[in-house]
Amino acid sequence: MRVRNKAWAPEELENNKHMIHDPEGCKGRWKEVFGNDKPIHVEIGCGKGRFVSLMALANPDINYVGIERQTTVIAIAARRITEEQENIFLTQVDVENLENYFEVGEIDRLYINFCDPWPKKAHAKRRLTHRNFLEMYKRVFGEKAEIFFKTDNRGLFEFSLEEMNENGWKFSNISLDLHKDECPWNIMTEYEEKFSSKGQPIYRLEARWEK
Amino acid sequence: MRVRNKAWAPEELENNKHMIHDPEGCKGRWKEVFGNDKPIHVEIGCGKGRFVSLMALANPDINYVGIERQTTVIAIAARRITEEQENIFLTQVDVENLENYFEVGEIDRLYINFCDPWPKKAHAKRRLTHRNFLEMYKRVFGEKAEIFFKTDNRGLFEFSLEEMNENGWKFSNISLDLHKDECPWNIMTEYEEKFSSKGQPIYRLEARWEK
Repeated sequence: MRVRNKAWAPEELENNKHMIHDPEGCKGRWKEVFGNDKPIHVEIGCGKGRFVSLMALANPDINYVGIERQTTVIAIAARRITEEQENIFLTQVDVENLENYFEVGEIDRLYINFCDPWPKKAHAKRRLTHRNFLEMYKRVFGEKAEIFFKTDNRGLFEFSLEEMNENGWKFSNISLDLHKDECPWNIMTEYEEKFSSKGQPIYRLEARWEK
Repeated sequence: MRVRNKAWAPEELENNKHMIHDPEGCKGRWKEVFGNDKPIHVEIGCGKGRFVSLMALANPDINYVGIERQTTVIAIAARRITEEQENIFLTQVDVENLENYFEVGEIDRLYINFCDPWPKKAHAKRRLTHRNFLEMYKRVFGEKAEIFFKTDNRGLFEFSLEEMNENGWKFSNISLDLHKDECPWNIMTEYEEKFSSKGQPIYRLEARWEK
């Protein structure tokens, strides 16, 4: 989602106490950063942060890290986290370098929500569920991995099913029309709110892998 | 699909030259039955036969066997096969006993089209993509297996994706809305014609397994 640049964004990022400015320095010591041993769930491409910040409010026993590379977008996300939320940090980095920020085994779950579908075949490698990314996630997870994935893009979901299947991931709780299912636990992203109201199906799956 | 019994059905089955009355006797000698070495594709639950008979017309280099257990339904299927079609036979048997009718390695592809979704969880074992069936198909196929599967039932397709994935099948050409894709090659079943005109998505996948 394109967002017009905001002049206040850089300063917000500079001063917001939920922003991590040195994610490389956190590698291997995220538990220290959070000050506890709770599981760490990471959202890749957290956008304006509705999902990750509400998940953090709803699940105080989980620590959340939201990753987003667009300055204005992550600044909006940072703003919406309330002062007292202690189980969430954001960092402005590129998912391609995930291994630079997390030690093997440090992440317990990845969320990928409504990522760019890169519909052209020539851009398939940029899709966050391409086998190259899946292999990288495996390396970061180490022994066992867990990805929760949502999208409204049919082509991307079809691709992801084939790619994850081929790459050895096991599926559960697949939904091909999430909002027609009973899912009171579902927290919607900004994008999801906008699109689901048009009646388009939202696709979702959980994928797990063990070494 | 429930069909009212027709008085003429038993006689049709008795006399139609495309009906196989002794499928056990064909086990291991289907190539002989067809009189050639062409690959054999089997449709499980062929219903009124639109799909399998049109596939046979469109693909003269493939031999087709349609399986259906309901008397009137398979009689309707038998009637629609034209006299001169030499690459298709039907047989009135239960898929559960597939191993009694085909020797290991004798089938090259299975089609499962719009099978009963058995929506109640207690009936999951009756779904033709339940792991017990998948294991049985593997035994019949032997070294490598291929299933082409279509349904309009979302719950059944979600179940099948999880079940086949868990059971070691590899996916390709998944479509979560077949009739919105370019698919001039698609031959519709009776049921598919009826339902797709209502705008409901048709789900499709190809699944392959190798020992």
